[in-house]
Amino acid sequence: MGAVQARMETALQRFLPPPEIVPERLHRAMRYAVLGGGKRVRPLLAFAAGELAAADPARVEVVAAAIEMIHAYSLVHDDLPCMDNDILRRGRPTCHVEFDEATALLVGDALQPLAFQILAEHVVADDPGAQLEMLKILAAVSGSRGMAGGQAIDLASVGKTLSLPELELMHIHKTGALIRAAVVLGARCGSALDAKQFGRLERYAKTVGLAFQVVDDVLDCDASTATLGKTAGKDAAQEKPTYVSILGLARARALGEELRAEAQAALSSFGAEGARLRQLADFIVLRKF
Amino acid sequence: MGAVQARMETALQRFLPPPEIVPERLHRAMRYAVLGGGKRVRPLLAFAAGELAAADPARVEVVAAAIEMIHAYSLVHDDLPCMDNDILRRGRPTCHVEFDEATALLVGDALQPLAFQILAEHVVADDPGAQLEMLKILAAVSGSRGMAGGQAIDLASVGKTLSLPELELMHIHKTGALIRAAVVLGARCGSALDAKQFGRLERYAKTVGLAFQVVDDVLDCDASTATLGKTAGKDAAQEKPTYVSILGLARARALGEELRAEAQAALSSFGAEGARLRQLADFIVLRKF
Repeated sequence: MGAVQARMETALQRFLPPPEIVPERLHRAMRYAVLGGGKRVRPLLAFAAGELAAADPARVEVVAAAIEMIHAYSLVHDDLPCMDNDILRRGRPTCHVEFDEATALLVGDALQPLAFQILAEHVVADDPGAQLEMLKILAAVSGSRGMAGGQAIDLASVGKTLSLPELELMHIHKTGALIRAAVVLGARCGSALDAKQFGRLERYAKTVGLAFQVVDDVLDCDASTATLGKTAGKDAAQEKPTYVSILGLARARALGEELRAEAQAALSSFGAEGARLRQLADFIVLRKF
Repeated sequence: MGAVQARMETALQRFLPPPEIVPERLHRAMRYAVLGGGKRVRPLLAFAAGELAAADPARVEVVAAAIEMIHAYSLVHDDLPCMDNDILRRGRPTCHVEFDEATALLVGDALQPLAFQILAEHVVADDPGAQLEMLKILAAVSGSRGMAGGQAIDLASVGKTLSLPELELMHIHKTGALIRAAVVLGARCGSALDAKQFGRLERYAKTVGLAFQVVDDVLDCDASTATLGKTAGKDAAQEKPTYVSILGLARARALGEELRAEAQAALSSFGAEGARLRQLADFIVLRKF
């Protein structure tokens, strides 16, 4: 995992515009938002899925960088005063606190096309038609029927009581879509999987995406701000429905465990090549930050 | 022109998510931001350049819709309180006034991937490799070295005295990049142009992009809010450097005329097929709104 994280840091450094190029302040802020932090869960998933599909790691690196830029932009915009109004992220001031609100807005606006640009200009599939399909997937999971849509459902749910299926729908959009894309696009860099195996991988991805959110909700209520590197307890403070508010802490923890078992089961027909994806399911559920 | 504008309205309606699909409020706001207004200058340029290159109008429609979505998102974000803080656009309340700030942020965030999605999922070039190249161009002109970068340069210039070349650099990024993309991508939908002709077309595009901005600055200082459908006089109020603040009104008007002549000259080697692009250079410089 450390090797992938280090590799990603180098790759992201390279794909981001240099800080000395005009407009310098924007480029510095983009680098601040993307580099030097984060667990890189999505790149880890992309590399693990790529391994399963016998993909060239150089291709997976491009896909993972594009996905991480989308993820980083979403954090910058989510932290803005008109959204979650948060001041701490990855143990540092959020982008709009470190720079300013207008610059943070533009950081997100510029990271997004950069993701599509690098995915269009580097070869990540055997033929350009397949690559266009991958670009379409990334665009779809980022948009109003994916991540941005999940954020809108989240906004609309503040102060409301959601049912468990409604909460799940929100998270399938908000965090699940991009996590699924990391797994699917990582695997699409290679060509070793058949349709049936892809189906299993998608089930794994969906389950792991939900598990990630369940654990996030547990940690938000259970861990300290220092451990998380972001403001703890803010879901309750903002009256946001979470797995903990709906199920209680114990049952939310148990749900995380169930989803971990389900993710592992989805991979049961894969042999040793599935080891890394199994480890990641453990990492996602058992993590403390 | 009316025919292209009507065609675009129908196309954009079709490409935008229906308002009754979850998240409904976000989808309504996206449609509010894109539909029912605007001169559609970029689509007009794309169709005219497409005509010159003997392109299938069905392809140009896709490219023009993608570009118009990028343009519409940029207006929504530019109008936000942390940027220009404007309340009027196309004669109606701006998106964050009609909906709310968080929704307007997400409208922009969701329109951007929708642009890339439709450009990835509809055939706009003879082969997928050429289509990837077109996607890359749209991404590049939207990012930190294109439109978003121009916006950052704009932010940094408030209250400063810029030289004419500095002002030009800002506008080449801020509005010029997307206008050039409209011309270039429209032409790339067809295959009738050789490299030399493409060079001329790019010169036309660059000149027309600058002319557009010069005229915008003149109108901002010269026309009424009612005519413009957006707040007049705001450049001066916000102490933004403009062609008028640097050159004075008369010389700015003369520069618009010069650029119009230069744009026409760039097209001189084209025959009747260049007629529409010539008309558009006139429209852009002689418009009153």
